Amino acid sequence: MTNTELSSFLGHWLPRLEGEMRELLASHEPAVAAHYAMMQYHMGWLDEHFRPHQAMAGKRLRPILCLLGCAEVGGDPVQALPAAAGIEILHNFSLIHDDIEDGDDTRRGRPTLWALWGMPQAINVGDGMFALAFAALQRSSRRGVAAEQTLAALDIFTQTCLALTEGQHLDIGFEQRTDVTVDEYLRMIQGKTAALVGGSIAIGALIGGAPREQAAGLQRFGHAVGLAFQIQDDILGIWGDPEVTGKPAGNDILRRKKSLPILYALRHAQTGADFAAVLAGKAERSQLRAALELIEQSGARTFAEREAQRQHENAITALKAALGERAGGSALLALAESLLNRQA
Amino acid sequence: MTNTELSSFLGHWLPRLEGEMRELLASHEPAVAAHYAMMQYHMGWLDEHFRPHQAMAGKRLRPILCLLGCAEVGGDPVQALPAAAGIEILHNFSLIHDDIEDGDDTRRGRPTLWALWGMPQAINVGDGMFALAFAALQRSSRRGVAAEQTLAALDIFTQTCLALTEGQHLDIGFEQRTDVTVDEYLRMIQGKTAALVGGSIAIGALIGGAPREQAAGLQRFGHAVGLAFQIQDDILGIWGDPEVTGKPAGNDILRRKKSLPILYALRHAQTGADFAAVLAGKAERSQLRAALELIEQSGARTFAEREAQRQHENAITALKAALGERAGGSALLALAESLLNRQA
Repeated sequence: MTNTELSSFLGHWLPRLEGEMRELLASHEPAVAAHYAMMQYHMGWLDEHFRPHQAMAGKRLRPILCLLGCAEVGGDPVQALPAAAGIEILHNFSLIHDDIEDGDDTRRGRPTLWALWGMPQAINVGDGMFALAFAALQRSSRRGVAAEQTLAALDIFTQTCLALTEGQHLDIGFEQRTDVTVDEYLRMIQGKTAALVGGSIAIGALIGGAPREQAAGLQRFGHAVGLAFQIQDDILGIWGDPEVTGKPAGNDILRRKKSLPILYALRHAQTGADFAAVLAGKAERSQLRAALELIEQSGARTFAEREAQRQHENAITALKAALGERAGGSALLALAESLLNRQA
Repeated sequence: MTNTELSSFLGHWLPRLEGEMRELLASHEPAVAAHYAMMQYHMGWLDEHFRPHQAMAGKRLRPILCLLGCAEVGGDPVQALPAAAGIEILHNFSLIHDDIEDGDDTRRGRPTLWALWGMPQAINVGDGMFALAFAALQRSSRRGVAAEQTLAALDIFTQTCLALTEGQHLDIGFEQRTDVTVDEYLRMIQGKTAALVGGSIAIGALIGGAPREQAAGLQRFGHAVGLAFQIQDDILGIWGDPEVTGKPAGNDILRRKKSLPILYALRHAQTGADFAAVLAGKAERSQLRAALELIEQSGARTFAEREAQRQHENAITALKAALGERAGGSALLALAESLLNRQA
């Protein structure tokens, strides 16, 4: 697939994906309409008075990977649409609960669900979307996917859900610790980010008719892409261009986020103690400059860039093993490259 | 099934059900062991220091109904064990989130998850159990259940999950209202209680090989049993014998719980305003006496008892339609009778 072909693929399938999701999250009974309207608010389709709205949507990265996974093994993406919708709904369920757990009151520039309608309703809306994510996957058979294939896809989906909660378990625990290691961090993002990216591609491939072994290979590819993606995110969170990211320089340092470069610098034998002392102070401009100097000295940036590159290479190796010669011209490869080279 | 046969059925299957659930909630990796240990604490298998423990367990009503649903249509309950385990795990997930949403800090005499480990971890532990409930149902194929049957059972399960969140949506909304009607209340318990009871039996029946129509009939039976069960609970919440229930007389009045008799009395043309005025005051012994007199005068007790009886009759009609002549000797009937006549 060339970049033009990828654009035309997305132009064709993204509106259908939105349609599938809107159908799934529609309400059917006035008594509980607000339950579904809150889901639709979160998706950006309604405003806080439940009037039609068009807010900035997410990247839809995971469902796109699901549809591409299906297409790359020769399947018809229309059969993967319900699963792709379920994957994006699952991702959004996890965002709703994350926002409650982290106490974040805005997301993509809008108030979060709990900030508008309270914590109890927000937890429950997330639970409803969790159930609808499964309902979406179970629709696959309506598109002619065999029952055994649907169950195989559901198996991966459920394992992915569980991995998400494992990653979140670690992430919540990190909040109260000052001794988190780089390895612990990598284990956390395996669960919180990489599992769903890998699962998305594998589910698409299984629905597209891939043998289990090939689907597992594509899952390894997605897993590595997910890790590279998150580490790249961590790099941009400190050294990203504010003009491009829309966030202040050194944003993750200001927010004291336990990202990979920061954890690396904190554990550094020479500069770690100084860096920790700077972070323990108030988040001021002058201290940001000192923190940026120390993190640079620690070699955290080089470490993170190498780690992202290493995961990217793992991804390519896995893709070649799964697709053989076709890997070179694959849209999955093009997408992985663009994720690694993005600036925001 | 006679009562003796039912006892022997439970004696045989309940330990196997516990074994199935313990296997599902076991942890496999030290890094995330605490995530699973919190689930095991909630189930009563560990104490708060994660040492082995034997706390009072729940009634296991729903999984028993699933196993009986399977047996009643001639299936082998061993095939329904994974689904029964999934149903009980789902029920417990909903209790964990309910406790957070209601701010309840004890359950069955022990601190709730959020009270011990904080709201963020407790939400996430609930999410993990939600995923494991699906993992449980998907295990059915390992016990030789056909893929199509497993998917049919999963369809009902997912719809049941969604109904749970709809019921909870209404229940949370009731907290902030003083004008909740009896009909609205009945709609709420349809989602929060009846759907899972009905779903449990239908899932067991489908796995036992019942045709869809028979499973739907048994689901209607369970739905009516669930409603009768909840209304009976509401009656016991006010007029239950403290010696038997272990709770103070008039407990639901003291707690200002929006239960069926209380809502009925609040909407009563003659005594409603007086009753509301008494409830608006402080929860004191003398006011409890006044409240009990007013609720009695309103006819709320008779109304609730008739409503429970009516649902019980609906249940029996549905059971006869689904099982024909065998309904009379069915363990499902015996269980429904014992639920309606219970004192705690």
